[in-house]
Amino acid sequence: MVTHDSNTQHISAQFDHELEEIKARMLEMGGMVEQQVSSAVHSLVEKDPDQAERVVSRDHDVNMLEVEIDDDCSRILARRQPTASDLRLVLAISKAISDLERIGDEAAKIARQSITLCEEGASPSGYVELRHIGNHVAGMVHDALDAFARLDVDMAIQVAKEDSQVDKEYGSAMRSLMTYMVEDPRVIGSVLKEMWALRALERVGDHACNIAEYVIYLVKGLDVRHLEISDLIAQLEEK
Amino acid sequence: MVTHDSNTQHISAQFDHELEEIKARMLEMGGMVEQQVSSAVHSLVEKDPDQAERVVSRDHDVNMLEVEIDDDCSRILARRQPTASDLRLVLAISKAISDLERIGDEAAKIARQSITLCEEGASPSGYVELRHIGNHVAGMVHDALDAFARLDVDMAIQVAKEDSQVDKEYGSAMRSLMTYMVEDPRVIGSVLKEMWALRALERVGDHACNIAEYVIYLVKGLDVRHLEISDLIAQLEEK
Repeated sequence: MVTHDSNTQHISAQFDHELEEIKARMLEMGGMVEQQVSSAVHSLVEKDPDQAERVVSRDHDVNMLEVEIDDDCSRILARRQPTASDLRLVLAISKAISDLERIGDEAAKIARQSITLCEEGASPSGYVELRHIGNHVAGMVHDALDAFARLDVDMAIQVAKEDSQVDKEYGSAMRSLMTYMVEDPRVIGSVLKEMWALRALERVGDHACNIAEYVIYLVKGLDVRHLEISDLIAQLEEK
Repeated sequence: MVTHDSNTQHISAQFDHELEEIKARMLEMGGMVEQQVSSAVHSLVEKDPDQAERVVSRDHDVNMLEVEIDDDCSRILARRQPTASDLRLVLAISKAISDLERIGDEAAKIARQSITLCEEGASPSGYVELRHIGNHVAGMVHDALDAFARLDVDMAIQVAKEDSQVDKEYGSAMRSLMTYMVEDPRVIGSVLKEMWALRALERVGDHACNIAEYVIYLVKGLDVRHLEISDLIAQLEEK
């Protein structure tokens, strides 16, 4: 907004500052859940129940952060009544924190499986694929947040592309886990727990992909949810 | 807002009408996903792959409805700049449709498992518990939407209470399914598919519970996410 009224300028600068601050808090929350996912996977692979317990107890902090940032969003909407790209930013942040909170939930679920697996004996798989998929989706969360910080649409598209890759890796990991169950029914319980952990990781990838889509909505004003990746790229090229 | 300016009154009446309309569309979307959940469960229990195919293909309509209503919410925020309870209503609708869309996704997942189970042979469980949990969570979606329509906090609390009941039923169903796997490894594949369907139903219950929480937020201005049900009731009694 161009204005020569110094008071209006002042208010506008203050508003920009509030928007930057809420975005910074969202990215901070993002860093926190990314760490939660990595720690949960690490606790499982390294059979470290203490680390898993820490992930479960930190989930409360993640939840509280979501409520706080969401309150900030409502307050900005009520007091500043933003329009156009400012409004889109607040709405995108409000949606992104809900995905981040759910990523935190999935990390806590993995940590709970990890605790039981440490107690009852590990899955016979050696967690090779789980570790790989865990690294992959933690990287996606990181990249989606980076894309948000820099408003980088290319990076956001890259995250959306990786999600279909993760889905393939997940399908293949599930099939190989099933063979362990068929070979030895005594491991069914532990393999099932690993499957739940894998399923949670696959959902983390979905949420990272959602965040990437908000970046595209934010930059292009284009709602790309529910599009196939090829259609998405086509729509962006038309713009 | 009390005003004697007929022009302002006119705008205000029009705004109320817009709010009622967006709420009606959200409830219509809710009815659609409730039906999707029931049809998906029915297709599985009755081994009806055609019905399951219809659920999968209707998921696209649910997704489009979310995008449309979300656009309406953004437009109202930008043009009407609502505050206080009007703002809370728009934000609650915007969150609720995201849960409804995810309920639709879960219904489509159940329908996909149903199609494969019809092709490859049913699970040996007879789907007794799945049918029961399916009815339970479809009822929760219905009640959460009813609570939203009437702004009925007591009904919303009831939905939140039922969610912990569903979690128990889910845990018991999973344990009984595991015994089928242990007894006969040949059924592992089909039982796993039933487990995925059950997991999806459990998540439908979670989303219904989220919607119930938005009703409380809407009526009481109180964010009750992440509270245990007993703490929730205690907090409401303090108000």
